[in-house]
Amino acid sequence: MSLRILATGGTFDKHYDEIAGKLGFGDSHLPAVIARSRMTVKAALEQLPLLDSLEMQDADRQRVLASCRASAESAIVIIHGTDTMRETGEVLGNAKLGKTIILTGAMIPYEIANSDALFNLGFACGVAQTLPSGVYVAMNGQVFGWDNVQKNRVAGVFQPG
Amino acid sequence: MSLRILATGGTFDKHYDEIAGKLGFGDSHLPAVIARSRMTVKAALEQLPLLDSLEMQDADRQRVLASCRASAESAIVIIHGTDTMRETGEVLGNAKLGKTIILTGAMIPYEIANSDALFNLGFACGVAQTLPSGVYVAMNGQVFGWDNVQKNRVAGVFQPG
Amino acid sequence: MSLRILATGGTFDKHYDEIAGKLGFGDSHLPAVIARSRMTVKAALEQLPLLDSLEMQDADRQRVLASCRASAESAIVIIHGTDTMRETGEVLGNAKLGKTIILTGAMIPYEIANSDALFNLGFACGVAQTLPSGVYVAMNGQVFGWDNVQKNRVAGVFQPG
Amino acid sequence: MSLRILATGGTFDKHYDEIAGKLGFGDSHLPAVIARSRMTVKAALEQLPLLDSLEMQDADRQRVLASCRASAESAIVIIHGTDTMRETGEVLGNAKLGKTIILTGAMIPYEIANSDALFNLGFACGVAQTLPSGVYVAMNGQVFGWDNVQKNRVAGVFQPG
Repeated sequence: MSLRILATGGTFDKHYDEIAGKLGFGDSHLPAVIARSRMTVKAALEQLPLLDSLEMQDADRQRVLASCRASAESAIVIIHGTDTMRETGEVLGNAKLGKTIILTGAMIPYEIANSDALFNLGFACGVAQTLPSGVYVAMNGQVFGWDNVQKNRVAGVFQPG
Repeated sequence: MSLRILATGGTFDKHYDEIAGKLGFGDSHLPAVIARSRMTVKAALEQLPLLDSLEMQDADRQRVLASCRASAESAIVIIHGTDTMRETGEVLGNAKLGKTIILTGAMIPYEIANSDALFNLGFACGVAQTLPSGVYVAMNGQVFGWDNVQKNRVAGVFQPG
Repeated sequence: MSLRILATGGTFDKHYDEIAGKLGFGDSHLPAVIARSRMTVKAALEQLPLLDSLEMQDADRQRVLASCRASAESAIVIIHGTDTMRETGEVLGNAKLGKTIILTGAMIPYEIANSDALFNLGFACGVAQTLPSGVYVAMNGQVFGWDNVQKNRVAGVFQPG
Repeated sequence: MSLRILATGGTFDKHYDEIAGKLGFGDSHLPAVIARSRMTVKAALEQLPLLDSLEMQDADRQRVLASCRASAESAIVIIHGTDTMRETGEVLGNAKLGKTIILTGAMIPYEIANSDALFNLGFACGVAQTLPSGVYVAMNGQVFGWDNVQKNRVAGVFQPG
């Protein structure tokens, strides 16, 4: 079993820019996070442009789809912003790639105290190896089908819908 | 789907005692870790005596078995020391409980920089919900059957064997 | 010797709001930070409204001045945003209170990886106890007089000027 | 003003060895800690053998003394184990070097959650630049003369004595 991990940005990978005084994107944290996870399963990391998911356009989703289609690995974890996981999931789901694709992300950036990022990545890497082919959202310790998930923006959690 | 999480100690849960100047066990980190994970799946935490797994005796393993047997949840994650996961796995595996039981732990304590604990817990909580009933060790981003795993103490990783 | 610590906000005390998805102000981190410092010197914490220093108005600076004037302790550390330390320093310096007042802050919020906040607080608490009365800015491991300091916004450091 | 920072080990600099499963010494954390502090004051780092201070012998203290004597900087911060700060302080104090020498350390290693190490280093770097020549212990947000300090091992704090 081997994994592909696609970095596309989102809250998970935000970085505090001390000169600008705000959160944005710099180098992805994923290389350090993967090293920290001590994964011995082969995990190919592919970095796409890092974006806030509210700014993702159709072309960005098509690029994610192209990477999934081209992936030699049939188990894929996508690090994604939480606000449009469902939209990207729909693009990937409709393509019926015959792979197990897990969208995950974080409510708090990896580099900020009390972040859920590392937990979510572990969770996603687990279910990517065990679920049948399909497109899923994995957040809050739960797996959702891409067509039955919504982010509850008031509570800050994912739920069926 | 709901989960039971059994805390039994191990490196994952070690705590630095600043008066004694060494690592030992205090209050379990698991309540804070579970809160941090933002799990919305129901997760019942059960704390057994926190032990270094090298000090686990038969009676301790029987207590873990009793908790698994009594568990109303059929998906169980056990936080365990890395040195004797296989021995506990054997006790649980031979009992044929018809539940999905995942042994996990950490190479670096949760409270120490660069710890794999949170990743491993996420991974274990994922595969506990997706694997068929059986007893497994989940470490290094991989799932092993309880009777085909060993810790490579030189490299500090788990491998088949 | 005893200290007064005034929390006024700034980058030091910013908090990531996971629902809003941005940095702002919540409860001050100072109570936790002071506990972590294990200070045995008596340190009275006084929390003023937490503000981004770019949004500080004259009335806000007068409130800081009033707190310094009323302080029973003659050694005062002010946690302040980095962008207008000099302006607040001028208000305090011109008041000639006969106390040792140290303005400090952080380039990276306390709760974000690699933050300088804890170092700066330690530094400030040290020089607050040892410098003669006056108003100072303490950043980057250096002490500056309030009337001879500027923030180099390109480099993100403080320097004389 | 410029500083010399001497790394001699102690709790501050302990590192968790995941293969051995215990705390010991590896590469010093000081280069990373100094970078994190964003000090612009010139700080020369000198690494001596990293030791638990309970294992420091006379020869080790003489080496610390030799480094202080040879230091081109007259402000020196020594990162030291907490258990024998007083003994090293006595060797340095009796040598009457005419420099400002600050012994500091930590109750919790830098790499463990809730560590006081970064606060203590900031505190020490502050008072090293402001105190008259002499040998001091700086812990718990307080400065002690080398001949009037003791570690209260039950409470885990420093006090006069």
